[in-house]
Amino acid sequence: MRLDQIAALAQPNDTKVLLYVLDGLGGLPREPGGPTELEAANTPHLDELARAGTCGLHHPVAPGITPGSGPGHLALFGYDPLVYETGRGVLEALGIEFPLEPGDIAVRANFCTLDAAGNITDRRAGRIPTAEAAPLAEMLDEIWVEGAGCFVRHVKEHRFILVLRPEAATGPNVDDTDPGRTGEPPLRARPRDEESEPTAWLLDTWLEEARRRLADQPHANMTLLRGVSSRPRWPGFQDVFGMKSTAVAAYPMYRGVARLLGMDAHEVADGAASLVPDLRARFDANDFAFLHFKSPDKAGEDGDFDRKVAVLEEADSIIPDLMKAGPDVILVTGDHSTPATMMSHSWHPVPFLIHGGRAQNDEASSFGETACRSGAHGLIRGCELMPLATARAGRLAKFGA
Amino acid sequence: MRLDQIAALAQPNDTKVLLYVLDGLGGLPREPGGPTELEAANTPHLDELARAGTCGLHHPVAPGITPGSGPGHLALFGYDPLVYETGRGVLEALGIEFPLEPGDIAVRANFCTLDAAGNITDRRAGRIPTAEAAPLAEMLDEIWVEGAGCFVRHVKEHRFILVLRPEAATGPNVDDTDPGRTGEPPLRARPRDEESEPTAWLLDTWLEEARRRLADQPHANMTLLRGVSSRPRWPGFQDVFGMKSTAVAAYPMYRGVARLLGMDAHEVADGAASLVPDLRARFDANDFAFLHFKSPDKAGEDGDFDRKVAVLEEADSIIPDLMKAGPDVILVTGDHSTPATMMSHSWHPVPFLIHGGRAQNDEASSFGETACRSGAHGLIRGCELMPLATARAGRLAKFGA
Repeated sequence: MRLDQIAALAQPNDTKVLLYVLDGLGGLPREPGGPTELEAANTPHLDELARAGTCGLHHPVAPGITPGSGPGHLALFGYDPLVYETGRGVLEALGIEFPLEPGDIAVRANFCTLDAAGNITDRRAGRIPTAEAAPLAEMLDEIWVEGAGCFVRHVKEHRFILVLRPEAATGPNVDDTDPGRTGEPPLRARPRDEESEPTAWLLDTWLEEARRRLADQPHANMTLLRGVSSRPRWPGFQDVFGMKSTAVAAYPMYRGVARLLGMDAHEVADGAASLVPDLRARFDANDFAFLHFKSPDKAGEDGDFDRKVAVLEEADSIIPDLMKAGPDVILVTGDHSTPATMMSHSWHPVPFLIHGGRAQNDEASSFGETACRSGAHGLIRGCELMPLATARAGRLAKFGA
Repeated sequence: MRLDQIAALAQPNDTKVLLYVLDGLGGLPREPGGPTELEAANTPHLDELARAGTCGLHHPVAPGITPGSGPGHLALFGYDPLVYETGRGVLEALGIEFPLEPGDIAVRANFCTLDAAGNITDRRAGRIPTAEAAPLAEMLDEIWVEGAGCFVRHVKEHRFILVLRPEAATGPNVDDTDPGRTGEPPLRARPRDEESEPTAWLLDTWLEEARRRLADQPHANMTLLRGVSSRPRWPGFQDVFGMKSTAVAAYPMYRGVARLLGMDAHEVADGAASLVPDLRARFDANDFAFLHFKSPDKAGEDGDFDRKVAVLEEADSIIPDLMKAGPDVILVTGDHSTPATMMSHSWHPVPFLIHGGRAQNDEASSFGETACRSGAHGLIRGCELMPLATARAGRLAKFGA
């Protein structure tokens, strides 16, 4: 369903909707036939919500597709990630919570090394340590190019972002300057359409100056640009669903995606317990709250099955406090699966539960991958969750007469 | 799947397909964990069809979306209601079975009242009773505008429709003249594109004359226009599915939607039993019959759980007669859910059964929301039902070589 079709149905209500994201929730059994991390965890409160509510599984992007954190969260916010694609430059900028403005052009950049002939010898400058790279990034932040503000922010090791804020609107369709192999010179910034010619000129001008300033540096004497992209002009979350919204997350990436959609975002300390304080006040000022808990994904990425079990129990322990804040509808799920056995994000569907509103009967009497397969919501796409949650909150009018 | 893709596969056969729509079929339990209306009803014939056939659940529009009757039926006829959107004016015209022709512009209209300064004092003219409003509509039906036929038909109380039949093709993209609040004058008909400028001129000319003729009326001295829309130019049902088709319904809205797709439509008395006579003769002359039974929706809208149970038993009682008419494939479902506990249409998925053709094994041994969740057809979209039913009738050829 298109967002403009949803927006046409959104109707006011005084109901409150809570989205509680357990990052990397979905998992796999350690041994065939055994329990997944979520099934091994003792989660009495989530089980009770699953029993009284309605369950299902979702594909954040599509069957077989492993979601990144950006697309995974866009899906949970109701934005089909196959339609609402974010450029890599924009995602990297969101990841460090750079305050992108409309019209900004964001670029992922690497420090690299060139030989005397100007050919690339290392595309990542030997993964130059952060302690050395950060001062170089600060130096590049001082570059000034006619026609655009230029911002450089260090990310990690050889990685940084470059953001152009052009004085006149320009297009983002410019090829990478990274040729993808060594022994060749960096490419010029080549525009793919007429609107992006000024952007290519700005980037080339910036690159010339960066090369001049880095010339005498022993460990990184040039940079390569990739993923040139502009801050997307998407409908805001409130414009679509009619809910004033707030995001609470310890990590910048998640606040960044939330801000991209116009949500108010708050930084809190790591851990489930830090999501609880002020939740009631946040609901007083908003209709929708998104709470992000990172630990299950980290444990999964570390391949630590037992720690993932433990942090899922931690996630469960705050449910009574969340319910005390008075949400009318609570949606608990993950942005993707991160099975400890795979030590990475995976394409496996993610369990979800929706509690509150008009529940159908279903057989899911606990919260887990297998139980959710008997849930009444079935196996759906991630971007279909928000319409379900808002319907249950009485916030969607009838479609057609 | 697009309709042109289906049309390319439609192949002739002498099989007969019956679609039996129990309006508002889906429901919810009266108490958590209890039976829904359909599960509480004693429906031995539907249960037997479910047992021998194949079951599933469908979202008429999309998860979380509450369908109106128009979109719900378009979905059952195989037309994705998110793609085949009908304007509100057209839906209102269908609702009174006005015979719209291609090129017609249909508009929902209200009687309203203006003060001496020309500002709106009541957008619905105090919900003027039908007895007073109908003669006013007849008076407006006599208005003549250069360049278009003009038809006015009363609907109910303050509501009527205006249909323009322009001599030359014009666009339907004209804004409402209803400003949505009192204390302001009605708006002029503003076109949103160049093709719709003649339509706006025709509407403004008609409105001036309507104002003149209503000027001395005590209870309604003006009209407001909304939902300007044209009869859509969609592929006909027979062009898509290759089946000559007939519709049998007591209520005009359903005959109207059927006629919009080129079906032959017949009015019968209310009640399930009136769908039976002549069915065999209708099948002699057609490949596809759509039978509409309104009562479950009305009982649900009235919040009468027990009456909904009773009319579902009435729906069940005619199944042996329907089967005697010799359909090769019968599809029984609803156009949306109308839980008695909600007293309204709802977004909950709707049970369906398909009997005849090549049935898969499944575990659904009765016809109900929970049983259908274990049906082999799973949880699908409403517009996917017709391809399933026609496939089972041997009417769809292989896709690709």
